Amino acid sequence: MYKAGDVRVQDTPDPVIERPTDAIVRIVRSCVCGSDLHPYRTMDASDGPVPMGHEFLGVVEETGTEVSGLKSGDMVVSPFAYADNTCAYCQEGFQTSCPRGGFFAAGTGGAQAEAVRVPQAQGTLVRLPVGEDSALLPSLLTLADVYGTGHHAAKQARVGERTTVTVIGDGAVGLLAVLSARQLGAERIILMGRHRSRTDLGRFFGATDVVAERGQEGIEKVRELTGGQGTHAVLEAVGHMPAYEMAVGAVRPGGVISRVGVPQYEAAPVGFSSLFGPNITLTGGPAPVRAYIDELLPAVLDGTVDPGRVFDRTVSLDEVPEGYGAMDRRESLKVLVTP
Amino acid sequence: MYKAGDVRVQDTPDPVIERPTDAIVRIVRSCVCGSDLHPYRTMDASDGPVPMGHEFLGVVEETGTEVSGLKSGDMVVSPFAYADNTCAYCQEGFQTSCPRGGFFAAGTGGAQAEAVRVPQAQGTLVRLPVGEDSALLPSLLTLADVYGTGHHAAKQARVGERTTVTVIGDGAVGLLAVLSARQLGAERIILMGRHRSRTDLGRFFGATDVVAERGQEGIEKVRELTGGQGTHAVLEAVGHMPAYEMAVGAVRPGGVISRVGVPQYEAAPVGFSSLFGPNITLTGGPAPVRAYIDELLPAVLDGTVDPGRVFDRTVSLDEVPEGYGAMDRRESLKVLVTP
Repeated sequence: MYKAGDVRVQDTPDPVIERPTDAIVRIVRSCVCGSDLHPYRTMDASDGPVPMGHEFLGVVEETGTEVSGLKSGDMVVSPFAYADNTCAYCQEGFQTSCPRGGFFAAGTGGAQAEAVRVPQAQGTLVRLPVGEDSALLPSLLTLADVYGTGHHAAKQARVGERTTVTVIGDGAVGLLAVLSARQLGAERIILMGRHRSRTDLGRFFGATDVVAERGQEGIEKVRELTGGQGTHAVLEAVGHMPAYEMAVGAVRPGGVISRVGVPQYEAAPVGFSSLFGPNITLTGGPAPVRAYIDELLPAVLDGTVDPGRVFDRTVSLDEVPEGYGAMDRRESLKVLVTP
Repeated sequence: MYKAGDVRVQDTPDPVIERPTDAIVRIVRSCVCGSDLHPYRTMDASDGPVPMGHEFLGVVEETGTEVSGLKSGDMVVSPFAYADNTCAYCQEGFQTSCPRGGFFAAGTGGAQAEAVRVPQAQGTLVRLPVGEDSALLPSLLTLADVYGTGHHAAKQARVGERTTVTVIGDGAVGLLAVLSARQLGAERIILMGRHRSRTDLGRFFGATDVVAERGQEGIEKVRELTGGQGTHAVLEAVGHMPAYEMAVGAVRPGGVISRVGVPQYEAAPVGFSSLFGPNITLTGGPAPVRAYIDELLPAVLDGTVDPGRVFDRTVSLDEVPEGYGAMDRRESLKVLVTP
């Protein structure tokens, strides 16, 4: 990405092993993320060019001398953040805070590419028992980010059987937060979103109600649906201030706002009249999806869930710039990339 | 209270039953709260006069026709917020959000008085198996607010046996947050406070370390003590922005900031570089102390804990203005009032 609206596909040197803990993965599927749209809309030319893409699955081509448990030819999926998976933070399930970890793209080369270098490969990559032609690849790819991120929102909000849930945002993360809340047993799931085809998929994933209204109107609608109380959990999958404000308005006293949309603001209301007075908990962050892959994988493999439905368009590597455009114009929910 | 610095003791009409759910309680012990110091320092004359005091224990004098389970002569303690204790929010343990509830003082008459009207008496008051001359009265009085509030901070932060804790503030709530964290099994409790007599009491209650430094220096000290990581929980018992900033600096990735100091700000940093990036949870609010009295009472009654040690001065009702002054000048930690 060179600057806002300017994505180019170009040849770069092949990635190579730089450290003994690295692996090189040939990419089989990658995709464009909703969070890639933030720089696509705002990036200055002086900040570019940067490699893009942090979601991928593929085949191990080469491993460093300190990598064990992985070998050339293994099919693997990668979390969007690499981590050693052994440090104290990783053990507590916060791999996105691993001191040896980091995010893919700027530091490693992007995953919207033919191949990528994976630091901390042994702690990062998870082997998949499928071949390169598996029909499950789109669903398995969601384990790299959007499914694990939706799941993180629901887990951090402690969604369970007696929980009522509002999900703000009908992008891929919001829709998979619906799926996760459903899997965790939530009795009621209100999806706030305005795009009919997306909210229909949300209903398929388990939403019991859809609220198309926004702002104060949207808040009132959620309150109407819940006898004036709001919901125990609000999963915020957008990241803009109006979504935060809707979350504060829709959450029940004693409830939890769980954010997984990357906040495009730093300060927000948290005082007596917003969070403190009604004992609202604010949680969330970049999802440590590595912590969830083992838990989410079986239901993907046996077809119980089909999170790959969030992909509604497939492009080749050369067509990636068109993929960004389609997502930016909301013609596409999420774009799959086949190199 | 007439205005900042101006507290007067004066005769008012005796409280009477106004609703069938009311009771009248003759006050045996009350006290001055750290939160009373906020208006004592800032209140405009145009906002006064207001009755003061929300922490009390005493003897039931009269009950309304719809109050059962309580009778004249019962010794009782009251949470600082009254509540029906039957609604959905109360059942979930958030009595401070009860639609029929409210806070003592402005709406009910204050508890720094000879008697007070208690709305929703059946749901609010808890009987105590002691007499008016019990040596346990100071400790039992802390169940009305400061002990339950410290406990709320620790519970909301999910303090347990593997939790490291920082407590910000060496007022009564901070010190009792230390005690609560200890009771919940925390392995390490770092108390941030600068008043030696108070932090000594904090050590008695279970603090393993004391940090007298503030601001960036204080943060660095906590990080030094924790191998650079910070603590899993930070219990913030002050309410000013510098305390919030210290909490953000002292908390460990994936950790919890639990606020029980009433925030004297509305907006605060919550974005990628403060809470979101390291997956910090922000929680807390006015403590639903009613939810904790049953749990905390036995150890007070059998002398296992002695939270009443936070009282370091006793005044008569006529001396209450001097009590405010002593707390304001930090000559006194917390002032007990015997009408």
